[in-house]
Amino acid sequence: MIYDVAILGAGPAGLTAGIYTARQGASVILIAKNLGGQMTQKAVAIENYPGFENISGLDLIQKMESQVQRLKVPIKNEEFLDLEKNNEIFKIILKNGEIIEARSLILASGSQPRNLNVPGEKEFIGRGVSYCTTCDGPLFQGKDIAIIGGGNAGFEAGLFMSIYANNIYILEYNDLVGADKENQEKALDLKNIKIITSAELKEIKGDNFVREIVYFDKNENKEKSLLVSGVFVQAGWRPASSFAKDLVDLNEKKEIIIDHKTMTTKTPGVFAAGDVTDSQVKQIVCAAGDGAKAAISAYKYLQKK
Amino acid sequence: MIYDVAILGAGPAGLTAGIYTARQGASVILIAKNLGGQMTQKAVAIENYPGFENISGLDLIQKMESQVQRLKVPIKNEEFLDLEKNNEIFKIILKNGEIIEARSLILASGSQPRNLNVPGEKEFIGRGVSYCTTCDGPLFQGKDIAIIGGGNAGFEAGLFMSIYANNIYILEYNDLVGADKENQEKALDLKNIKIITSAELKEIKGDNFVREIVYFDKNENKEKSLLVSGVFVQAGWRPASSFAKDLVDLNEKKEIIIDHKTMTTKTPGVFAAGDVTDSQVKQIVCAAGDGAKAAISAYKYLQKK
Repeated sequence: MIYDVAILGAGPAGLTAGIYTARQGASVILIAKNLGGQMTQKAVAIENYPGFENISGLDLIQKMESQVQRLKVPIKNEEFLDLEKNNEIFKIILKNGEIIEARSLILASGSQPRNLNVPGEKEFIGRGVSYCTTCDGPLFQGKDIAIIGGGNAGFEAGLFMSIYANNIYILEYNDLVGADKENQEKALDLKNIKIITSAELKEIKGDNFVREIVYFDKNENKEKSLLVSGVFVQAGWRPASSFAKDLVDLNEKKEIIIDHKTMTTKTPGVFAAGDVTDSQVKQIVCAAGDGAKAAISAYKYLQKK
Repeated sequence: MIYDVAILGAGPAGLTAGIYTARQGASVILIAKNLGGQMTQKAVAIENYPGFENISGLDLIQKMESQVQRLKVPIKNEEFLDLEKNNEIFKIILKNGEIIEARSLILASGSQPRNLNVPGEKEFIGRGVSYCTTCDGPLFQGKDIAIIGGGNAGFEAGLFMSIYANNIYILEYNDLVGADKENQEKALDLKNIKIITSAELKEIKGDNFVREIVYFDKNENKEKSLLVSGVFVQAGWRPASSFAKDLVDLNEKKEIIIDHKTMTTKTPGVFAAGDVTDSQVKQIVCAAGDGAKAAISAYKYLQKK
């Protein structure tokens, strides 16, 4: 069978694309190794998704899933490895060797925050360790926090957190931060932001909640620690885009370059939405909205054919 | 007081922008004559907003409103008439003569139903002519009605009215309806819905109340009439953009032209989101997602200053 639309990924973008595609009467398959994407890893409740004052990532994604299931969208829990295009038909090569065929694709494979891989990081996710200041920042009102990563993302996280946090330590592994001058100057203006360079994070410690970080000061050649209640990891993202690289253009961050009005990529019939794209905002409601846009563009593409 | 951000409009785009702006710690005011925009007029329950299998427009908008209110965003229930810019400060001129000042603007003023401008339309508003099936549908219990417009809005109005009305005629100007397949199939299943294509409405007639519509059948090249007690106009939308025309570019539909990645308009500091923009998809979740994008762009703009 050749599906009208194959959706690759089942986070907010993919599931919303599934809702819209199914309601348009198209034959659709949703392919994802794990349902929910990053959402299932969100330990702290979501308070900025419109419609819910407070909901866990898991609960929200399950609500979206049940909507997709009610529309009888088949879901294939398998990893996808590669894409091919032959005579306007796309082939999705799965890890189990199977091949799925579709007339159009919606790439919604998401992105993963780059981990630090230090002791305590995984253990304290949702209990002081976070990857998203927009999401979890308000929880650290009046607390001391550390931000790991001195690039623009780290500095912007620091500036944002200055609304809430008491003392903010930005730790950078190298001897110079990577953030641009503008962000550095703004951080210097704020008395509660302290930049620590040549700092290699060693461990995140605590009991129920983060209490302390231990880092190696490469200048002074000794271990130091800081008492903090929160650690925001800002070490970049890993978009799951490599499987699609023959059909789409990627930017320097390996994000899929799209037209943000139509969600089109450089290949007709291939659309993308959510965190795997070069969107400037990585937020649930934005991914969902863009998933709907991709579905409607795919529908228009199929109608034209 | 000069606000950091003034949000104009309180539909899904404006309210989501409110949630995001307030969480960023910016001082924000939300200005709208009526909360909820079109949402409060939606006749059919919403089944495509991710997170809710089935919810009324009013319920969903009230949930969004309560999120905004919990963040203590001041809401000004007043009509805005005009915008001015002086030395990087925007002035919003309200109908009551008051002036609100802000450093940045998010235009989320939505869209209003388009009139038909045929004889009888204005005369019979409230006496058989309506733009809102939710508001007026129950008045037509057991009556025959016409719906003008064969897009999704027209079909959804027809499906909703099948609860109440006896015979329902959906008139479409073009030779094909624009509604999606699912809506068409649902309408076909209902014996009391009749679709009439290539029909140009000429006049709405009656005495105290609507009694009859006259349309030109473009296939048979002759005028015909239908005896109906109600006419629901579902003929597209008029973006509420004229108040902003000095600061933004409008397209031929009077929609605000934006960069869809950043929600920026031609004037730095002025952002737009939702149905008032030239977005190709007019959907609740898309408006909400774009409202979040506009809020984050406004935040970045303010930080640079």
